[in-house]
Amino acid sequence: MFNRVALIGVGLIGGSLARALKKHDLCQSIIGFGRSQEELEKAVELGVIDNFGSDIKETVKDADLVIVAVPMSAFESVFSAMADVISDDTVITDVGSAKNSVIEAAKSAFGDLPSGLVPGHPIAGTEKNGVEASFDSLFENRQIILTPTEKSAAGAIEKVEKMWQAVGAETVQMTAEHHDQVLAATSHLPHVLAFSLVETLGKMHESSEIFRYAAGGFRDFTRIASSDPTMWRDICLNNKTAILSVLKKYERHLKTLEIAIEAQDAEAINEIFVRAKSARDEHVS
Amino acid sequence: MFNRVALIGVGLIGGSLARALKKHDLCQSIIGFGRSQEELEKAVELGVIDNFGSDIKETVKDADLVIVAVPMSAFESVFSAMADVISDDTVITDVGSAKNSVIEAAKSAFGDLPSGLVPGHPIAGTEKNGVEASFDSLFENRQIILTPTEKSAAGAIEKVEKMWQAVGAETVQMTAEHHDQVLAATSHLPHVLAFSLVETLGKMHESSEIFRYAAGGFRDFTRIASSDPTMWRDICLNNKTAILSVLKKYERHLKTLEIAIEAQDAEAINEIFVRAKSARDEHVS
Repeated sequence: MFNRVALIGVGLIGGSLARALKKHDLCQSIIGFGRSQEELEKAVELGVIDNFGSDIKETVKDADLVIVAVPMSAFESVFSAMADVISDDTVITDVGSAKNSVIEAAKSAFGDLPSGLVPGHPIAGTEKNGVEASFDSLFENRQIILTPTEKSAAGAIEKVEKMWQAVGAETVQMTAEHHDQVLAATSHLPHVLAFSLVETLGKMHESSEIFRYAAGGFRDFTRIASSDPTMWRDICLNNKTAILSVLKKYERHLKTLEIAIEAQDAEAINEIFVRAKSARDEHVS
Repeated sequence: MFNRVALIGVGLIGGSLARALKKHDLCQSIIGFGRSQEELEKAVELGVIDNFGSDIKETVKDADLVIVAVPMSAFESVFSAMADVISDDTVITDVGSAKNSVIEAAKSAFGDLPSGLVPGHPIAGTEKNGVEASFDSLFENRQIILTPTEKSAAGAIEKVEKMWQAVGAETVQMTAEHHDQVLAATSHLPHVLAFSLVETLGKMHESSEIFRYAAGGFRDFTRIASSDPTMWRDICLNNKTAILSVLKKYERHLKTLEIAIEAQDAEAINEIFVRAKSARDEHVS
């Protein structure tokens, strides 16, 4: 499917995609690039990538597919570094969690949006990070949201779709703006809430005693608060508008519930809980 | 260990404790009582209880151990119904999630707090309910918080402790007030937050589309929003003060984070996330 793949950022997501590309025999070679020589050497040892470049330009040159899997904060500098060497035929995709921000970074770095650029976001991951946590089945039966720009070429979109489908994922297209709103609600907001809960308990008097009585529900609820802080900081910065919008909605609903508890309004509390349970039971398997 | 055990409320928790008592051969017989004849018949069929009574008085009479495993809202009427037939030798314990409220219900029903009453709360459960979801290992390696009253007899406390330890649990004693604060933070608040999150998304435009892109993190985070709404309504009503106190703390921390996101204050966001991640990684396995 591809000849030379350039993978910029060889962490959990990038590494898992590289493993999947190799498993399904979708490319001749994968050349990585990353900030840490040690991590890159480990990635070669693990067979995740074949080799690595010493700078982005060299890594991307001659690649027919470029995958950008770096933290949100690094997109603009990564795109800028490759601006000179990509051609109209280079397919570029990424795995960033906030898509408007990726497109803005591309505009700023490339001037015009490249026709080969097809931004994407796999709805997959774990709370772990780093290439050692990567595995080749991460995307199987997962959804990949692609957010083509107005400049994306149909051929490039098709190639990116085929790549994801070949590693077992389903693809869906929507606008970057809609993606950012949906993900703010289903992913970014829950992370913000979980970090805030652990922060609240951690700041309480006798917090270590309090944590001792945390049961399974608490463990599940706060698992995402063990995610990479830098990554989530970057997501908050890069999807600020959509996150704040849904966070304000959340605060209003929480306040409504608080008022009902304060008023001992059994019926109002019950209505909220029944509706929430039935929505979750209906929509989340 | 016991001769005749009266189990008032044969659901997930009561049923699991009955199964564990039988498995570890800790009593001669278990007589159940509940609101639904059908559920009680099922419990007998499943071997969870040996028989069931037609009223609380008859069920409790001659029992040397009474276990109350009913919703929080039913405690006062259950205690009142048994007030005439319990003796000084009857050990009474319960599994209610809010302990001050159980003790208040007992005071109101019994007049004086019985010396045999040792309130307790197993930190165990699942989001399921009903006797069919019960299983005999639910309490293994789990913590049971006992909140003896100022009237609880040392002998009764010891018997309840020994019972829980015999089914594989660890016991710890604290005041009812402290229990309620700790559980408000580690259990009740997370439930309130999870119900509110699902409520927020459920009320959004195109909510069924939004739920479609929920990933594993969302599933874990909202699992507790599939819990029994009535049970959690009752907990909110019965542990109102402690829940509102920790909820207000939470809202302040959430607001701090919101302001940091609004201000694009990378350092402030990072500090919160790093602190939360390290607290969770340290305290929650």
